[in-house]
Amino acid sequence: MKIINTIAQLKSIVHDTKGEGKSIGLVPTMGYLHEGHLALATKARGENDLVVMSIFVNPTQFGPNEDFESYPRNLERDAQLAESVGVDVIFAPSVDEMYPEDGGISIRAGRQSEILCGASRPGHFDGVLQVVAKLFHIAEPKRVYFGQKDAQQVAIIQTLVRDFNFPLEIKTLPIVREADGLAKSSRNVYLTEQERAVVPAIFEGLILAKEEFILHGNATAAIELASKHITDKTGGVIDYLELLSYPDLKAVTDTTNDFLLATAVYIGKTRLIDNIIFSTKGETANV
Amino acid sequence: MKIINTIAQLKSIVHDTKGEGKSIGLVPTMGYLHEGHLALATKARGENDLVVMSIFVNPTQFGPNEDFESYPRNLERDAQLAESVGVDVIFAPSVDEMYPEDGGISIRAGRQSEILCGASRPGHFDGVLQVVAKLFHIAEPKRVYFGQKDAQQVAIIQTLVRDFNFPLEIKTLPIVREADGLAKSSRNVYLTEQERAVVPAIFEGLILAKEEFILHGNATAAIELASKHITDKTGGVIDYLELLSYPDLKAVTDTTNDFLLATAVYIGKTRLIDNIIFSTKGETANV
Repeated sequence: MKIINTIAQLKSIVHDTKGEGKSIGLVPTMGYLHEGHLALATKARGENDLVVMSIFVNPTQFGPNEDFESYPRNLERDAQLAESVGVDVIFAPSVDEMYPEDGGISIRAGRQSEILCGASRPGHFDGVLQVVAKLFHIAEPKRVYFGQKDAQQVAIIQTLVRDFNFPLEIKTLPIVREADGLAKSSRNVYLTEQERAVVPAIFEGLILAKEEFILHGNATAAIELASKHITDKTGGVIDYLELLSYPDLKAVTDTTNDFLLATAVYIGKTRLIDNIIFSTKGETANV
Repeated sequence: MKIINTIAQLKSIVHDTKGEGKSIGLVPTMGYLHEGHLALATKARGENDLVVMSIFVNPTQFGPNEDFESYPRNLERDAQLAESVGVDVIFAPSVDEMYPEDGGISIRAGRQSEILCGASRPGHFDGVLQVVAKLFHIAEPKRVYFGQKDAQQVAIIQTLVRDFNFPLEIKTLPIVREADGLAKSSRNVYLTEQERAVVPAIFEGLILAKEEFILHGNATAAIELASKHITDKTGGVIDYLELLSYPDLKAVTDTTNDFLLATAVYIGKTRLIDNIIFSTKGETANV
């Protein structure tokens, strides 16, 4: 496995790989890898000739009062984990390497970014689209892998790829969870022991709301049930807890078949997100 | 030569072409071809295995009171001209083919778009970047050809390519002019006989300003000289006439070496643009 830091190095590898008619799978990450990332890399390994994992804590997707500086980083540990699942190239550029100049052009994520995480993180998804557009152009992947944990991110990136005709396919994998249901997240390391003990109630709350909604079709009642469960059990503060259509993230109507039930909860200073995507057409997905 | 209308057709051709390791040159146009476009296609023919010309009057770069509906179109004539210079594929999609859905994501051209043509055409360069980003992703060109007549457009697209790492090269060619100096433009067909007789004064004015500036270094005096010449000789109304650094389009300073002298003039209802790019380091370019 190679660890490279410059765009020129990656472009050279991409050029050679594509010149041989081989496919590239890209796993964009901010590092501090957990089993969710490794599941993405494993999937990519099975479907592509070359697997590139980017590890880049992207400053443009963090707000001024967010955890960019303190976001956990450990490239050495990440490299061992990535190599263990067959990643060929880790691309770990510096901020200056990714953003040497600013000509003032921006991508605005628009309507789909004004809700859920976007409401409390203005500009977050603009930053996400900026960095993924750059990574897509640098790595020229045939397939790109994202976890369904960032459901809104996946929906917005899929819209970017569709509406701007990026020549690649977005592949998503279900949320990977701890044994007690907590969604795996790099930010889980922020939790104190006491906080860690109660946060499985977030996923429990989502399950309760989903079951309530499937039984009685009342979104408001379902969300109240989940909110009460989560706040009672965790003592946390809910940033949002919403039921929307998926993947277009619009208000639910009588004809909606596919749903995203998503939440963000502040547990002390740590902001955790989780979601369930499910269908009322029969089978459920990604629970 | 093939004339195709769907993205799927072009992607299929691109897939086959790249699969054979061949290079693609793209010439984006709005059709109603003139010698300027044909010079681009001829250049592309000499440098690439496959030459794709897009012909698409892009609605998102026209303002509500602009000439989108009346913009001259003649695909049959364009096809003959394109074939005569060796174009392999004309991609002439419908508006619905290019914009079937709108997920709300946009590209904002930013600082470089707020001056010159952008000041009087708000949103114009956002629309330009939207359509070129889509075309770049669909045609996957190694080289893309633009005329220097749209100097601001070229500068902004070069910034897009640089800051978002598009895997392609932008090639520009000098302005092609009529014998009397008028810059070739699809919009020249709008001119009456009387208007056509006087519009060479636009280029004359730019030449006067350039000579004045090179001699005395006084930008204000140079621009006044050109403005007076153009308004006196054409009776037109100057939208802008500015001297800026090139290609970054900033205010001129003592250390500026490369200049864009650009103007837009309303001749009756027709808006014509022209420019000169020159250097004070010695040689001049593109006059």
